[in-house]
Amino acid sequence: MEFKDFANLQSVQTLRKLAATPYSLAGRGALPPERISGYQASSCDFDLLYATQRIDEQVLTALQELADEAEAVKKFKAMKSGEVLNTIIGHESEDRQVLHTACRDVFSDSPCEPQATAQALVQLARLKTFLADLDNGILTNEQGKNFSTMIQVGIGGSDLGPRALYHGLKRFCRQGRDACFIANVDPDDAAEVLAGIDLSRTLVNVVSKSGSTLETLTNEGLIRQRFIAEGLDPGKHILSVTGEGSPMDDPTKYLASFHMYDYIGGRYSATSMVGGVTLGFVLGYEGFLELLRGANAMDIAAEESDLRKNIPLLMALLGIWNHNFLGFATLAVLPYSQALIRFPAHLQQCDMESNGKSISKCGNPVAWQTGPVVWGEPGTNGQHAFYQLLHQGTEIVPVEFIGFRESQYGEDMLVEGTSSQQKLLANLLAQSLALASGQEHANPNKAFSGNRPNSLLIGERLTPYTMGSLLALYENKIAFQGFCWNINSFDQEGVQLGKRMATRILSEFAGKENGQMKDLLQDAPEISLIQAARLG
Amino acid sequence: MEFKDFANLQSVQTLRKLAATPYSLAGRGALPPERISGYQASSCDFDLLYATQRIDEQVLTALQELADEAEAVKKFKAMKSGEVLNTIIGHESEDRQVLHTACRDVFSDSPCEPQATAQALVQLARLKTFLADLDNGILTNEQGKNFSTMIQVGIGGSDLGPRALYHGLKRFCRQGRDACFIANVDPDDAAEVLAGIDLSRTLVNVVSKSGSTLETLTNEGLIRQRFIAEGLDPGKHILSVTGEGSPMDDPTKYLASFHMYDYIGGRYSATSMVGGVTLGFVLGYEGFLELLRGANAMDIAAEESDLRKNIPLLMALLGIWNHNFLGFATLAVLPYSQALIRFPAHLQQCDMESNGKSISKCGNPVAWQTGPVVWGEPGTNGQHAFYQLLHQGTEIVPVEFIGFRESQYGEDMLVEGTSSQQKLLANLLAQSLALASGQEHANPNKAFSGNRPNSLLIGERLTPYTMGSLLALYENKIAFQGFCWNINSFDQEGVQLGKRMATRILSEFAGKENGQMKDLLQDAPEISLIQAARLG
Repeated sequence: MEFKDFANLQSVQTLRKLAATPYSLAGRGALPPERISGYQASSCDFDLLYATQRIDEQVLTALQELADEAEAVKKFKAMKSGEVLNTIIGHESEDRQVLHTACRDVFSDSPCEPQATAQALVQLARLKTFLADLDNGILTNEQGKNFSTMIQVGIGGSDLGPRALYHGLKRFCRQGRDACFIANVDPDDAAEVLAGIDLSRTLVNVVSKSGSTLETLTNEGLIRQRFIAEGLDPGKHILSVTGEGSPMDDPTKYLASFHMYDYIGGRYSATSMVGGVTLGFVLGYEGFLELLRGANAMDIAAEESDLRKNIPLLMALLGIWNHNFLGFATLAVLPYSQALIRFPAHLQQCDMESNGKSISKCGNPVAWQTGPVVWGEPGTNGQHAFYQLLHQGTEIVPVEFIGFRESQYGEDMLVEGTSSQQKLLANLLAQSLALASGQEHANPNKAFSGNRPNSLLIGERLTPYTMGSLLALYENKIAFQGFCWNINSFDQEGVQLGKRMATRILSEFAGKENGQMKDLLQDAPEISLIQAARLG
Repeated sequence: MEFKDFANLQSVQTLRKLAATPYSLAGRGALPPERISGYQASSCDFDLLYATQRIDEQVLTALQELADEAEAVKKFKAMKSGEVLNTIIGHESEDRQVLHTACRDVFSDSPCEPQATAQALVQLARLKTFLADLDNGILTNEQGKNFSTMIQVGIGGSDLGPRALYHGLKRFCRQGRDACFIANVDPDDAAEVLAGIDLSRTLVNVVSKSGSTLETLTNEGLIRQRFIAEGLDPGKHILSVTGEGSPMDDPTKYLASFHMYDYIGGRYSATSMVGGVTLGFVLGYEGFLELLRGANAMDIAAEESDLRKNIPLLMALLGIWNHNFLGFATLAVLPYSQALIRFPAHLQQCDMESNGKSISKCGNPVAWQTGPVVWGEPGTNGQHAFYQLLHQGTEIVPVEFIGFRESQYGEDMLVEGTSSQQKLLANLLAQSLALASGQEHANPNKAFSGNRPNSLLIGERLTPYTMGSLLALYENKIAFQGFCWNINSFDQEGVQLGKRMATRILSEFAGKENGQMKDLLQDAPEISLIQAARLG
């Protein structure tokens, strides 16, 4: 494998030239039937319609060359096979494999990386037993009753992915089972969640790879105290998901401990035990397996080297076209599915923590833009909120729309001759077209310039299987972009400085409480800020 | 009042020059105590610390000049007094007053606009009676029981603001009262909310100014059907908030109807009956009044013409500095308060729908950037998600941090010598400093360039009063920016095109169902898209 700087790729020069005159989507005739039918791709159960991107054959050809020059698919396959890709060449770095795909590569006789898959299978088998014990009344609460709620305590990757998937799949939860999440160190987060819960029938699933995450340990402490205050035994209610041998891998403190491994980054861990325990609890073991099947299918589809047949790769390259060549700073992900309400928040981590980097794979400052700001809310809600700016603002925002032909619940009714689901989908298509086409008008305030690029990702129905595919689609898209930008998408050094400064300020607070000497000099900005904020 | 184009202001030329060499926040000595104590402002119960913005005395002076040249405060006062500011000069436009401030200008003997305030007082008096009737058992369900839940059905401004305030103030809800929200036309939204509810004890509050919002009417229809299916009388459960005389202002269909007025835009309507009915139900009438008191206090504080003493004005101008002069496309609003989880989503509407415009107040295309993309999630959660990009990404994201000295619940515990609330605040201060200061490092991947502008907005505790102040602070900030950019922040023509196209596609769907002729030509992009998406 070669690691070539993005700016030096031949195709990048070609694309720069092409970006001077991108295809115009605005006005009559810009979207003929053959364009709309020609620019569509399928992977697993998803279709991508991308005629409403500012691309033509030349751009697509050059984007394919970019993917090839950067060896995006080759690196993706190497990643799945256990190559050590979480590195910065020539500098101290995490130096790890990147094997979240192994968690779902559990359906084949010849997995890409047998060792990691074997470890995943061990954890899955333990989860299956644990869930069966809950079903069979072997594991019950102090009064012999079944558990009905699981609280997942984690933050970042130990929270956002599982939470997004839980919301996405609530429809499929088993009767009498639900889940809650506590993440924030803000004590009001735990206070509010705990206010509405019968702790005696609650399992608490504490998730931290290192077993030392500040927020998670603090919240665990708070919850343990609450169990004791209610006369319950925390050891009968609290389980952990953590690295093997971490301080949280302790059978004397936890009802059970499941393992996660160094080669799975937090933001890619939703299909490991990090998501598995809570999702298995609410969906049942088979439901969680379905999610893995869908993710695995997309991991296989993403090995296709022709970007016209590989949605994750195609979306990665269209994103690069919009961000690096057309110059748009952000990306809106707008699901027309209320169940996906927390999916954009998960993507914010998965994408921005992966690709918000300034140093190349080789340790040099990058001379090109890396990851965009990713944001979004479900439609149609957003239409009545920020779409004004999408249509008529001075910031151009590329959009990835997501929709499903069928609703989850199937509870619908006709109003004025159409169902709610039809109204939802009519709006989805209409927004895509309106952003692209625009509209002239004699009143300047009612004119739309159009040419606002977007694509439509459409699936049949949001189920555990398609949710898994959608998750993997985005994970793989993000990896492809990182390979093209020639950055390390798998570390997160940028979170360290804030942590260190917080520790210093905390020791100042703690010192105050104990009347001790302070760690910081009186003219340190930390001290001035504490005083100005009147926190000292 | 004069409406001068932003690009022609004298101060804009000055600021362009100053932007070539903005103050550097990075490195040792850039944040001395006198800078941190010097750059702070107070309005109502909030403090703004803004030493971590890339500004100096010259920039502040020029920003003050900009505010003065644009007559920002003068126009704000005119707005409060009922001037017709929702216009595009020389073109057909909404031609309305902008009087959301009148909803809370109800505590003085000489309100700024007596007529609108009189109307607000009438609605408040009706709300007070309605809530008292609920308390006194005059209004009960079919079995004579009290109502325990209110579902608000609305979308956009009829949903986001009230929802954000409800989440922000859950701590203050009356025992045995809660609220839910249904907005999306996605039938799964209603299905999921209704799945967990005892309809017999539920009031449904349908909110639509026009009385004709597609999503809202559809969801109302769905809910009416459900009441009937459960043998309940919808007329005893459903109330409306709507324009006087709208199709929803109908005593034969609704238990009660409260009114909203044309001079209050949806996104500014949270302190009108749009928020008042549901918030009054959960907080009690006095709780809602407290919210109004806080908002009113901030409306008065925003009349100060010295930006160093007027936080909404100062934040508006700092935003313009970052967006127009330093060139940053987005703004992250990051509350260190879990209760504010939906506040950024509300701001997305309030800000982006107001200021996502391309036409000046005088109907000319703008030659400058208007509103940025606004996004955000609560801290500390975000620290474990997208902060990597904030610290080390190639997109620079200005940040508005929000925090409170005290928690809402006061349920806290010491872990390692400090409380959760202290940990929360230590992280808040640390992030502000880390983004500004950066840090050199021999390992390029562990280096932080710093110079990422941000400010800290700090209040004592999030209560109904301070929530009201915070809401008004942002509403007023947004209005000030619109006045400076010389745009109309109070219309939303950009949402119309998508609506019209959706209607055409829907009639195509409806025609299919009925076997009728289609409205659209066979080669219309709508038809091609329906076919490509396999929805036809």
